[in-house]
Amino acid sequence: MAQAYAYTVYRGTFIQTPRLPHLSPPPKTELVRNRGALWVSSTDGRIKGCDWQARDEVSFKALLARNGWVDIDAPEANGSDGNEVKVKIVIANEERNEFFFPGFIDTHIHAPQFPNVGLFGSSTLLDWLETYTFPVESGFGVQADQSKGTGKLPKDAPPSALRIYDHVVARTLSNGTTCASYFATIHVPATNALAALCHLRGQRAFIGRVCMDNPDFCPSYYKDISADDSLSATRSTIEYIHTLDPKGALIKPIVTPRFAPTCTRPALEGLGKLAAEYNPPLHIQTHISENTNEIALVKELFPEASSYAAVYDKYNLLTKRTILAHAVHLTPDERSLIRQRDAKISHCPASNAALGSGIAPVRVFLDEGITVGLGTDVSGGYSPSILEAARQACLASRLLGHTTSFCHTESKQTLQNGNSDKPTLGREKLTVEESLYLATRGGAAVVDMADDIGGFDEGMIWDAQLIELGGVKDLGDNDNPLDGQVNGVQGLVKTGPVGNVDLFGSETWQEKIHKWVWSGDDRNVKAVWVGGRLVHSRS
Amino acid sequence: MAQAYAYTVYRGTFIQTPRLPHLSPPPKTELVRNRGALWVSSTDGRIKGCDWQARDEVSFKALLARNGWVDIDAPEANGSDGNEVKVKIVIANEERNEFFFPGFIDTHIHAPQFPNVGLFGSSTLLDWLETYTFPVESGFGVQADQSKGTGKLPKDAPPSALRIYDHVVARTLSNGTTCASYFATIHVPATNALAALCHLRGQRAFIGRVCMDNPDFCPSYYKDISADDSLSATRSTIEYIHTLDPKGALIKPIVTPRFAPTCTRPALEGLGKLAAEYNPPLHIQTHISENTNEIALVKELFPEASSYAAVYDKYNLLTKRTILAHAVHLTPDERSLIRQRDAKISHCPASNAALGSGIAPVRVFLDEGITVGLGTDVSGGYSPSILEAARQACLASRLLGHTTSFCHTESKQTLQNGNSDKPTLGREKLTVEESLYLATRGGAAVVDMADDIGGFDEGMIWDAQLIELGGVKDLGDNDNPLDGQVNGVQGLVKTGPVGNVDLFGSETWQEKIHKWVWSGDDRNVKAVWVGGRLVHSRS
Repeated sequence: MAQAYAYTVYRGTFIQTPRLPHLSPPPKTELVRNRGALWVSSTDGRIKGCDWQARDEVSFKALLARNGWVDIDAPEANGSDGNEVKVKIVIANEERNEFFFPGFIDTHIHAPQFPNVGLFGSSTLLDWLETYTFPVESGFGVQADQSKGTGKLPKDAPPSALRIYDHVVARTLSNGTTCASYFATIHVPATNALAALCHLRGQRAFIGRVCMDNPDFCPSYYKDISADDSLSATRSTIEYIHTLDPKGALIKPIVTPRFAPTCTRPALEGLGKLAAEYNPPLHIQTHISENTNEIALVKELFPEASSYAAVYDKYNLLTKRTILAHAVHLTPDERSLIRQRDAKISHCPASNAALGSGIAPVRVFLDEGITVGLGTDVSGGYSPSILEAARQACLASRLLGHTTSFCHTESKQTLQNGNSDKPTLGREKLTVEESLYLATRGGAAVVDMADDIGGFDEGMIWDAQLIELGGVKDLGDNDNPLDGQVNGVQGLVKTGPVGNVDLFGSETWQEKIHKWVWSGDDRNVKAVWVGGRLVHSRS
Repeated sequence: MAQAYAYTVYRGTFIQTPRLPHLSPPPKTELVRNRGALWVSSTDGRIKGCDWQARDEVSFKALLARNGWVDIDAPEANGSDGNEVKVKIVIANEERNEFFFPGFIDTHIHAPQFPNVGLFGSSTLLDWLETYTFPVESGFGVQADQSKGTGKLPKDAPPSALRIYDHVVARTLSNGTTCASYFATIHVPATNALAALCHLRGQRAFIGRVCMDNPDFCPSYYKDISADDSLSATRSTIEYIHTLDPKGALIKPIVTPRFAPTCTRPALEGLGKLAAEYNPPLHIQTHISENTNEIALVKELFPEASSYAAVYDKYNLLTKRTILAHAVHLTPDERSLIRQRDAKISHCPASNAALGSGIAPVRVFLDEGITVGLGTDVSGGYSPSILEAARQACLASRLLGHTTSFCHTESKQTLQNGNSDKPTLGREKLTVEESLYLATRGGAAVVDMADDIGGFDEGMIWDAQLIELGGVKDLGDNDNPLDGQVNGVQGLVKTGPVGNVDLFGSETWQEKIHKWVWSGDDRNVKAVWVGGRLVHSRS
């Protein structure tokens, strides 16, 4: 769709994390704040330039004049002679503590499990799959009435799947997720529908049809008929997605063996080959080393492999475009293998706590040079919000020093410096800044798009969110705040804050970001753009 | 204030947890759901009766007629002859999945630390106190301009303190907290102001002036001048509160030695005696065994004591009305002592994760017959919501099996049955139902009000919240949900849900409660009552 303007000029405060240099250990992550203007082309949705001097009205007007830009929403724009370049201006309001932030990247989410959000009882991975997950996923295979439906969506997709998937995309967008790597189900029509919905709503997505053909593990009511069926069905969704979005500008297929226990050797082998058939090779996603019982099961099912990671490696599923979810209990040899292959890790702290899986040693990954991003892992995770995942990443890392795996393995040495005999040194803790790095730049690297998304570098795609923290409570005057308000009760809460972020006026800008991370939610997400397109605005 | 009606009749669904019998180990907690009507006296705010048959319109009308009740909001009430008893009717809307739930009880919260919510970096207890906490608390001692102010609030309280405290009370009420045990600061005027604000807004509260006179630990800019000063200042707030609320119907003082390291022996001794002076003895609150460095410090400061708990016991501070916050690393001997004294524990899981303190073994406490409730511990905890505390209690308990303290202490044996050699058996996990028990009945027992609040038993005080989960998304019809909606993007999110609780129609009522616990927030709190008085309604 051609826009009526050549650029969108974003004005105000821009906050991001820097791109980490390839150093081990990586340097301390600090947030970067710029104020001024940044412009995005309507043609390709990429950042074409910025001017951090253009902070006040005079210098902003000078910027416009210098470029021959006219604001399409300003009255004088109507009277232009047609030679000027039309631009749209979007402002982050300083007084409301608004700022632009890179869109969140959810590197691991199961779209069909959304109806199960919050339902997991006290289960752990393997019984959770059987009790909660396989039943809800199997429902995406019901027959659709193909006489209905629109041209934009696959006619053979069941309406219930469409509605749930539509809700998932809406919810994740409203939480600032501009890019998600989705596990769908084994069903081709519903999987294609998820791809079509993301395309329609404008969310960047990797869409994976789930492969699970091992009759010894998968329930009879929810499995691929055979390895060949796994492969041909996967190929079918790949073709659909390549037709839907030939350049892969927004939607890409991702080869998705659910995890080693669900797949036969022929399926794993075929999927590895399938991914490698394409140029560039397709992305791959799966689970690894989430739960100790699962690890024991993999050992039992694949006695020939030296480790869980080695199973994937044997079948060429451990590539630089592979996303490994969880990685809670990796051995040093597995980490070494993953680093050699440059495979990526999706850290899912909310899920790992909820299902009692354990705590992944993210600092060890980072120190060793492994790429890490965040995943919500809905519905092992109870929230579709990457901000919640960032919070939980911080919290989990603060409990890591109390865990046996941390104290009794080489992780301990990795994090120790000098000859202290204390097992917990604090380096294992992730800072708010590091969690935000994982949520943006880290996730971008996990989906192999570090040059395109996750930050505001020139040339990058404008996948971004406008965050509004709200006004500062005025504590400066000497008037009694309660006159005439106490009986109304809601008095002060109505003024100032958006959602639960309370600012009192003494915060540094970095502290405001901390308050956002610890108290923020979807109420603070005022607008979301993907590829320069507005895909969500708060209602 | 006299009401224009004798009773409020609440109609709809009522959900609560049962009161636990004194059994060890306690039985599995299930939620109790009743539907019908329950009525509360306008005179004393207590529940006078209920009728679980009065579900439909006919039987509800019969209930009214049987009692001679007329609805003050119904047209026919205006024409009554004056002999009928007037009642107000409040309905929980079934279609919107509304239900009444007992108000939450926050057994540990630091009101003056509210401006620091979300600000703690990677600190742990002792450096957190020095870096973040003491500086913000010390600000509550600024001189007030006594020529201003209203008659309802202490004139000598600084306006900044009033504003912050007012916001704390508003925020906690809006999150469904009907009763809170507050730590204030060392300052008498500001502490009294917190009491007055809770009284005005109608929140049930225990108000503690913080005692800290140990010059070897407390900073010179924020400490009591002497043990005598600690005692006389505490006495002063007690007297203020006893004047404010002579019967202690809503507000009670609570003796508050901050924690052992901040207090000299004379102060601890004097505070123990002070609490015992009254009939009944005053409540007491303090911290215990939150952090390993803190425990080492107590051992160093009190070498004569056999344990941290023994310090408090020596000075008669371990009573059946004592709230001990944290209790992360108690020894078996300490647990035994606490149980003997019937002192209570405030479990603060969000704080214990945020400050990296560790995970308290709540199941062990419950199994041993120790009374436990939940605390937000703002601002060691990053949220004023007890629902968030309940979530974090569930999550922390699911990670407990991975911790060294759990695997290497007697806790392991306590939770093991049979001769399994696996350290984690799952019993340590708290269910959603148990977390809600801790948030309501458990908290009520912690503040020694188990007969009065925390449930809907006849005779109990109506401290309650009306929760609205929102409508169920209609997945039943066959129409394509996206026609004409996709371009607007917000389409489906606008309809149905309140906040982030998504219902799809297949949930049991218990599952709806799970979804509330895992996805709910203040948006789902539609109204809050304390002592029968409406103290918050969602704006």
